[in-house]
Amino acid sequence: MAAIQARSRRIGGDLVPGCTRPGAVAEGNGVPEKNAHLNRLAERTMSTDHQRLRIDRMTPGYWKVTLSNPPINLYDPEMFAELRVLMDQIEEDKDIKVVFDSADPDYFISHYDILRRDVLPDMPGSAPFSEWPTFVTRLAQSRVISIAKVRGRARGHGSELALACDMRFASCEKAICAQIEVGCGAVPGGGATEWLTALAGRSRALEIIVGADDFDAITAEKYGWVNRALPDAELDGFVDNVARRIASFEKRPLELAKKLVNARAGIPSEAERWSSNQSFFTTTTWPETQALIGEMLQKGLQQRSDFELRMGHYVVHLRRKNETT
Amino acid sequence: MAAIQARSRRIGGDLVPGCTRPGAVAEGNGVPEKNAHLNRLAERTMSTDHQRLRIDRMTPGYWKVTLSNPPINLYDPEMFAELRVLMDQIEEDKDIKVVFDSADPDYFISHYDILRRDVLPDMPGSAPFSEWPTFVTRLAQSRVISIAKVRGRARGHGSELALACDMRFASCEKAICAQIEVGCGAVPGGGATEWLTALAGRSRALEIIVGADDFDAITAEKYGWVNRALPDAELDGFVDNVARRIASFEKRPLELAKKLVNARAGIPSEAERWSSNQSFFTTTTWPETQALIGEMLQKGLQQRSDFELRMGHYVVHLRRKNETT
Amino acid sequence: MAAIQARSRRIGGDLVPGCTRPGAVAEGNGVPEKNAHLNRLAERTMSTDHQRLRIDRMTPGYWKVTLSNPPINLYDPEMFAELRVLMDQIEEDKDIKVVFDSADPDYFISHYDILRRDVLPDMPGSAPFSEWPTFVTRLAQSRVISIAKVRGRARGHGSELALACDMRFASCEKAICAQIEVGCGAVPGGGATEWLTALAGRSRALEIIVGADDFDAITAEKYGWVNRALPDAELDGFVDNVARRIASFEKRPLELAKKLVNARAGIPSEAERWSSNQSFFTTTTWPETQALIGEMLQKGLQQRSDFELRMGHYVVHLRRKNETT
Repeated sequence: MAAIQARSRRIGGDLVPGCTRPGAVAEGNGVPEKNAHLNRLAERTMSTDHQRLRIDRMTPGYWKVTLSNPPINLYDPEMFAELRVLMDQIEEDKDIKVVFDSADPDYFISHYDILRRDVLPDMPGSAPFSEWPTFVTRLAQSRVISIAKVRGRARGHGSELALACDMRFASCEKAICAQIEVGCGAVPGGGATEWLTALAGRSRALEIIVGADDFDAITAEKYGWVNRALPDAELDGFVDNVARRIASFEKRPLELAKKLVNARAGIPSEAERWSSNQSFFTTTTWPETQALIGEMLQKGLQQRSDFELRMGHYVVHLRRKNETT
Repeated sequence: MAAIQARSRRIGGDLVPGCTRPGAVAEGNGVPEKNAHLNRLAERTMSTDHQRLRIDRMTPGYWKVTLSNPPINLYDPEMFAELRVLMDQIEEDKDIKVVFDSADPDYFISHYDILRRDVLPDMPGSAPFSEWPTFVTRLAQSRVISIAKVRGRARGHGSELALACDMRFASCEKAICAQIEVGCGAVPGGGATEWLTALAGRSRALEIIVGADDFDAITAEKYGWVNRALPDAELDGFVDNVARRIASFEKRPLELAKKLVNARAGIPSEAERWSSNQSFFTTTTWPETQALIGEMLQKGLQQRSDFELRMGHYVVHLRRKNETT
Repeated sequence: MAAIQARSRRIGGDLVPGCTRPGAVAEGNGVPEKNAHLNRLAERTMSTDHQRLRIDRMTPGYWKVTLSNPPINLYDPEMFAELRVLMDQIEEDKDIKVVFDSADPDYFISHYDILRRDVLPDMPGSAPFSEWPTFVTRLAQSRVISIAKVRGRARGHGSELALACDMRFASCEKAICAQIEVGCGAVPGGGATEWLTALAGRSRALEIIVGADDFDAITAEKYGWVNRALPDAELDGFVDNVARRIASFEKRPLELAKKLVNARAGIPSEAERWSSNQSFFTTTTWPETQALIGEMLQKGLQQRSDFELRMGHYVVHLRRKNETT
């Protein structure tokens, strides 16, 4: 079953007028080295067939952005580089509503591509990681209205991208949400702890994060992780309707209404983002975490495998030093 | 089907001893001119057959207040004036539990009567608007326990009155909740942004407010907008049971328990109320908003029309300058 | 139907090495008199067959703690004394995940044993009451991951123990949650107001606390009072799976993840705990409250009676001075 509808106009990664250089806006924010690296990545992929984002301008004010990185829609530095270019574009335009979906019905975003450390100049504090919490907060605070349409697995960065969107709608049959970091010896960064605690409350956030299991869309809806779980056959139509409806409204009340909700709901603060992200970095350097990731790679991590499809199941069957079962 | 049960004792708008002058308590709060206007409105309607609130004293401590303003239960300055008198009465009595319902099964409260600007001395900052956020906060902070029994549409001020009540129960078949302001070029005032963000979380509050659509009771229950959605045939009995039960309890623990919940949950602050309300005022003066309202009036707004019944549907079919679909 | 599964290893109340004296850790916290009293209670019960907690070490890192105090699983000073010893043990061990369940399928914990005032040196400020809010906060802040498996009634202290656990799973058919204090003339202490307001939102917390009725597990799940309601036949397997899964994970990311969630979600503060607890104490001394409790004792309170089984029903049929129905 096709996850992507026929496109009215395929425009791909072309840039809007006034924003011809990838990452131009973000370049001056004090981390020129890292951003320059990301900008080069974006320039490289977006000039080829390997671009990660496919942009359909459904209407002038409603863009559909399809995440596509075969074979399992890993989030990688190139995808992040293109996401940052996209943000520059839609913020420049000032009147865009954006729907994120995926080209792969099994994976919204599987998770971060942990084998792409080679391209990162200074892991683990490199731009694709350390800029990620900044990016998701920027998306949440933007005047852009963003919607995640989740089919397939949204784990790690995938869950975090969806959580930073203003709304999330998920396929009852096909969506799986997970923050599986604790099962791999790490803790979530990128806002997951902040968003989930606010949306699902302390106890369900603990179940999600400490239990580190896969959650179906019905449970994710109960927990507030997604706005709604919809039958897969209705998902595209429902989300398209919401996006077109919002895109038809005047931009001034939209912008003001979002600002007021953000002011009341609270967006993760700089301090919260920094501390969560530092926690994530630190845990990834622990030897037990490194050992677990090594074993996971042998068992099918990052491949089109049953391990990736059912990671919540397999993560409890790893060899651990504190084996207690 | 009758929305109102047979009344045990119909007492109408008569005043309790010790509070014989409408609005007496509130008169000294620094806006005498506005409140005098409201008091005159209350005196005028309550001495005639046109009173907006019908009060049934089910027991000495449990009053049912039925909102009635044919043809579509618009909230107007007279209804607000009578609500303020009611608050004076029940706070004077110190031991009242109040259930709000509507005489019209299609409309709990449709929305503010925008054609009643003529009676307002200094729109848009006039008393019925600027005092509204103060009133709903007063209701939430009062020792009175308040319950909204929602049948029909609760949009705008109707949703906000229900949200300020301590609890809300809605008919599965007949209730519709909406904050449709953004679809009309405005943003909600009167506490909607504050309550919905706290009850439904950021993403669902954004869906409600930015999406500006009608929501059925089942979805409103999922989102925490109402406590429970109940089959219409069970709604009256359920709410009556809750109200009688609470009315039978001692008033001291009731008052203390509500104070403690309010302290923990947080009631919208003066600053929040003021800024949301100013935002609402400002948006209503925008020319695009005025143009939209003009078109809506031509299409059936404020009348017993299909437009009012399905406003969430019709609001996307208005002519807009930023037409993008 | 047996509420407790066959035990792999029954070890009862024996102490872990390094913590051989009950309450040793807590003794120095400035209330030596009260804690000495609790320690003596724990020493007395744990050396006999009357111990209230049965501890099954399912794995070295996963303990099942079964609450057992026939005939109706009342929470009494001895149970509290043993709970404090348990906390000392599992915090000393640093790697325990604990599941609380009950030996009685009708009662998780019925409520506090109000007839045990004789053993309390300085009621109502005595240790088993005044230390309770401190204990539940300690459980929430501990590195221990705690899960409540709720079968039967969890009222008062029972609901509060479950709420202080990191997660709660309840039997669809057998669990009943209630904070019935207001119906008895008192208000909840022990964190109920704080947790319920955060988990269920203001309006549902008010319905629970001010309505003072029994809630089934399905409604408790809707309100976030429990993480999930599960068919009774699946409850044991589900909870056992969650506990084993978490117990298999590394302790460092678990501890850090819980700390981060706690930091974002907020744990009731000392000031909040103190003020709620003082409110509870005060209300229990009111003459109308004392009169109600006296009548309840005559009608079956604290006995294996229909009154205890359906207390939410019976509490509205007490004689009250402010009788209004």
